[in-house]
Amino acid sequence: MTGLLVVVSGPSGAGKSTVLKTVMEKRKDMYFSVSATTRQPRPGEVHGQEYFFMSFDLFHQMREEGKLLEWAEYAGHCYGTPFEPVMNRLSNGEIVVLDIETKGAMQVMERYPSAVTIFLTPPSETEAERRLRGRGTESEEFICSRMEVTRSTFRYIDRYQYIVINEIIEESANMIDAILTAERARTGRNPGLFAEFRK
Amino acid sequence: MTGLLVVVSGPSGAGKSTVLKTVMEKRKDMYFSVSATTRQPRPGEVHGQEYFFMSFDLFHQMREEGKLLEWAEYAGHCYGTPFEPVMNRLSNGEIVVLDIETKGAMQVMERYPSAVTIFLTPPSETEAERRLRGRGTESEEFICSRMEVTRSTFRYIDRYQYIVINEIIEESANMIDAILTAERARTGRNPGLFAEFRK
Repeated sequence: MTGLLVVVSGPSGAGKSTVLKTVMEKRKDMYFSVSATTRQPRPGEVHGQEYFFMSFDLFHQMREEGKLLEWAEYAGHCYGTPFEPVMNRLSNGEIVVLDIETKGAMQVMERYPSAVTIFLTPPSETEAERRLRGRGTESEEFICSRMEVTRSTFRYIDRYQYIVINEIIEESANMIDAILTAERARTGRNPGLFAEFRK
Repeated sequence: MTGLLVVVSGPSGAGKSTVLKTVMEKRKDMYFSVSATTRQPRPGEVHGQEYFFMSFDLFHQMREEGKLLEWAEYAGHCYGTPFEPVMNRLSNGEIVVLDIETKGAMQVMERYPSAVTIFLTPPSETEAERRLRGRGTESEEFICSRMEVTRSTFRYIDRYQYIVINEIIEESANMIDAILTAERARTGRNPGLFAEFRK
């Protein structure tokens, strides 16, 4: 069985990491890709766990050498997906999930049309803003600029195959779990089955 | 939410009716289409439950009047799907499942490209034959002719979007359940979500 490359995007406040962690607990065949970034680690973040932290020079070199599956700049820092671990897991038949923003996602879709693409979102623009304000720690300016990003993210919805509205974490996780199960059952992803009858 | 038209086909011995009954128990949003047929009811079969039993003339008339979504001849009898109940359920947002053979399925795929199509099958040709012989009541001639039909059915696999191998009923039912959940989350099936951002 071949692996499944899965792209999950969505505006901030969608709850991507919480939902994906819940999916991970349900499935043993799933690997969560760790991105490379040029930003500094925050307190508690571990190299190789939340991110591979690296210098701009090293990031740039990886990019030049084609060692990044996708990359994008976001808020003044570079983020990218190292190619090799993803490919290793895929050829091992595993499901590899990339939690990346829309710009990087478009690169993956172009290179891997067989990727499964999921847009995870809060129920509405209003709810996205409510969740953002709910943290209570952000300036009005920050909120405005973040909501601008959110709106521009929504414009990419039609580029994704699936849309999952995150109201209840457990339900969203079940839905993503179902999507992965269904995609594994796609006829085109199982060319070996009854191959003698399929030409 | 719009409904989902689902076609399930597969060779005899795949266990379609058992698996689909198990899926039905899991979902409240699913309606199992009852076919019309010109064959005589078997003992215990109830009109409107297993089939709508009707004369050849009435069947022919329905067909002429465009009241059949699909139809096919099989072993000397006509089988078809009455249009109206299917459309009513779909416009009501329900999932409508058609358990039909490949010839009828091709007609549905042509008319409704948005239909979800699932091929349910025993694990192998050998296993299909074993299950057929396992009944212990059929003549060698019957088994040979039925296996011929089975092999010709396998040739249609690539026309179906999903392939589900029925080894354990509960697992196959879970897989079909997952497929239905996933298909409901397809971006293209939810044009109303965030419509203001999608042009």
